[in-house]
Amino acid sequence: MTSQGQAAWELLLPAAAAPARRRGRALQEVLREAVRAGRLAAGTRLPSTRALAADLGVSRGLVTEAYEQLTAEGYLRSDRGSGTWVSGAARAAVPGARPTAGAPGVRVDFRPGTPDLSLFPRSAWAAAQRSVLARLPHQALGYPDPRGLPVLREALAALLARRRGVVADPERLVVCSGVAQASTLFGCVLHARGLRRIGIEDPGSPEHGRLFASAGVETVWLPLDEEGLRPGPLAASGVRAVVVTPSHQFPSGISWSAERRATLLDWARAVDGYVLEDDYDGDFRYDRAPVGALQGLDPERVAYAGSASKSLAPGMRLGWMLVPEALLDEVVERKRTMDLGNPVLDQAVLAEFVTRGGYDRQLRRCQRAYRERRDALLAAFDEHLPGTRVSGIAAGLHVIARVPERFGPPPRFLARAAEAGVGLRPLDAYGTARPADGDVRLVIGYAHLTPATVATGIRLVAEALRRE
Amino acid sequence: MTSQGQAAWELLLPAAAAPARRRGRALQEVLREAVRAGRLAAGTRLPSTRALAADLGVSRGLVTEAYEQLTAEGYLRSDRGSGTWVSGAARAAVPGARPTAGAPGVRVDFRPGTPDLSLFPRSAWAAAQRSVLARLPHQALGYPDPRGLPVLREALAALLARRRGVVADPERLVVCSGVAQASTLFGCVLHARGLRRIGIEDPGSPEHGRLFASAGVETVWLPLDEEGLRPGPLAASGVRAVVVTPSHQFPSGISWSAERRATLLDWARAVDGYVLEDDYDGDFRYDRAPVGALQGLDPERVAYAGSASKSLAPGMRLGWMLVPEALLDEVVERKRTMDLGNPVLDQAVLAEFVTRGGYDRQLRRCQRAYRERRDALLAAFDEHLPGTRVSGIAAGLHVIARVPERFGPPPRFLARAAEAGVGLRPLDAYGTARPADGDVRLVIGYAHLTPATVATGIRLVAEALRRE
Repeated sequence: MTSQGQAAWELLLPAAAAPARRRGRALQEVLREAVRAGRLAAGTRLPSTRALAADLGVSRGLVTEAYEQLTAEGYLRSDRGSGTWVSGAARAAVPGARPTAGAPGVRVDFRPGTPDLSLFPRSAWAAAQRSVLARLPHQALGYPDPRGLPVLREALAALLARRRGVVADPERLVVCSGVAQASTLFGCVLHARGLRRIGIEDPGSPEHGRLFASAGVETVWLPLDEEGLRPGPLAASGVRAVVVTPSHQFPSGISWSAERRATLLDWARAVDGYVLEDDYDGDFRYDRAPVGALQGLDPERVAYAGSASKSLAPGMRLGWMLVPEALLDEVVERKRTMDLGNPVLDQAVLAEFVTRGGYDRQLRRCQRAYRERRDALLAAFDEHLPGTRVSGIAAGLHVIARVPERFGPPPRFLARAAEAGVGLRPLDAYGTARPADGDVRLVIGYAHLTPATVATGIRLVAEALRRE
Repeated sequence: MTSQGQAAWELLLPAAAAPARRRGRALQEVLREAVRAGRLAAGTRLPSTRALAADLGVSRGLVTEAYEQLTAEGYLRSDRGSGTWVSGAARAAVPGARPTAGAPGVRVDFRPGTPDLSLFPRSAWAAAQRSVLARLPHQALGYPDPRGLPVLREALAALLARRRGVVADPERLVVCSGVAQASTLFGCVLHARGLRRIGIEDPGSPEHGRLFASAGVETVWLPLDEEGLRPGPLAASGVRAVVVTPSHQFPSGISWSAERRATLLDWARAVDGYVLEDDYDGDFRYDRAPVGALQGLDPERVAYAGSASKSLAPGMRLGWMLVPEALLDEVVERKRTMDLGNPVLDQAVLAEFVTRGGYDRQLRRCQRAYRERRDALLAAFDEHLPGTRVSGIAAGLHVIARVPERFGPPPRFLARAAEAGVGLRPLDAYGTARPADGDVRLVIGYAHLTPATVATGIRLVAEALRRE
């Protein structure tokens, strides 16, 4: 045996010591790993099967099988008559240095976007899962309809017509992985039609920019006032598509006026354009009935997107889009090439949950919890940072707080809050507008925090500001 | 009241008859629908709240609330002092004529691609679901890591290293919605790097063409022989990326030779290119150990994609991709903009299922069932269509059958089979090659059929061929 053979022999000893029924596989694994890691270099000649078997004290058949298997896979090569060699085919992986994200030192995090994950209806969901697994036909486990399970599309269409006043034809409803995927799908379809720009609200969600960019569509900030998108800049922008949040604008919290809704639709018809309505938190309205969705006014110009991310949990990745007839086939084909459709078990469980009334119960439960938290937030501002004006309070999971200049200036305010372990996001992180005054404008997410934590967070900020 | 008011009055009667607690909402729904459907035309003046309330026999507050709500939503407009009108904003949906797919008149369907859906391990899956819902931390229900749950990435990395001989670093494993999404992700990343063409095996899967086209990447057929891709045409093609099925080529059923594996990797290194290994049925091998994956030979040049579509069910939409370090960040960002990541509950359940050994048990169960069906197929050919050569039988869920010319010609053979209600797909549906002889070459999927059904299907074809 050569010295290389000797190395192989030592290396292979643990495999030879494996229980008999695993020994062959163990031998192959160790040999493969040795080649891959370079411990057996390319060109190294392996001992004969007879010699190696004798050295290891295993049957010759086992060694022959290992050589054959690794030769078939390309790790070894075998020249008839002259033996077996390590081939030059294998290369080791480059070790990747990927740091895992460290936990930030935040005690109370008011950054918006997450519901209270502890409100996820675990037992009701488990019951729906059991029911689905017990009665779903086998056939439904095959490749899905990319639009979604018919039973879910019907359940959601009825729910959305009832709760959100949309025109909800199940044939035009596409189940998708939340509003993010709906945005990407919409962007891909616009791009295929030659559109390269889409308007977004300013202030608005920078995430829209990243999603549309992935579809090759650039976002253009369009200024908002207290009624909705300003018509002049919209018309002057030259875009033929916009994404908007008219029910509870993100982040400002306003509800678009009826006039601006009508103006937007007139504009869309005039430019032969399309609107994506992002109804990200339309389910939550505290003091009156929710404002019906824009889509209800013109389902041929408005695509409507929503999800279960706020009502159930973002980790569900379950959402829906109602699509204008003219875009439907393209959206469905994009959805198909993106993932062939959403997982069917999840869809069947959500259908069960909606149909049996679980979804409505869940919304009522969340509404109660979130209203209480909102009220705690308003009380905490009154007590600890008096004079703060809070707006956008009628709906949703966040508000805008405008803290008077005397608590500022904003950079000092944010720095002190951060030192106190309170995560806050300024309004100007969500757009291009920079106010002339020195007030501190914040987007405050409160839904994921208990009333006590909400109060603690605001108190910590006020205390930090008093320290010099 | 005007005549339009009269129309509205009749229209609204059912709403007025609703139970008291639903009456306000019912009124709004009927009114909204009437505007939308054009039954109340734009410009129509509505009766005063006092008059309508009296006519309907409901409280005036209810009517006022309905008018206000629909005005806020844009269906109505209200001119202070002069009353309420139907606005011009609302447009009805275009009725879509979307036929639902009719059931084809197929008695036995040998078309490949689907496993036996009745083998889905319902009770084991239900147990894993229960376990996950009972102990998953709330935090895990938030927005997911787009790469997938760490616990699943670790479980899959260990499984794939053990079963498929891949280099499986959990940090480089991206959980995705099956091989289809892996292909689209790979295509998007190639496109972003300026590549516009990718080679596919001929014969191969036309579906690859549709997936890559959605990413803006054109597919180029590259001829295969009995060892794998032919090196000459590969080099001459000018492509710098290919997608291949070396373990059990689809559809031919061959396993690539070690030499062709090495040649492909040499080519990839020489052109600074990438290989996508589609290991669509690598879990199923009947007569010996599976051939290890190509990715194990060079994880920096080969992306490896697989899924639970064959082992569990296509409707799960759960797959994985091992990504070369150089492409990883781009793949993850694409995955993020496509859907933000896979649903977390499904991922946690699969992790539980793999970790507790359920996945291995499921594979053994499927192997036994599918081997029996394969043997039934071989026996049926021997009995009913003697002389048929069946290849690619060592692995997977399908085989290639070459039926002698005397049972042909192919068009007649396929027509007779279709008349007998037997679904068959000819090999030439999967590529550009057209054989010179008159043999009938078929791609036969058998895994989803019981042994008795397999035998019946082949018998039906033979009987149909005997009829004149």
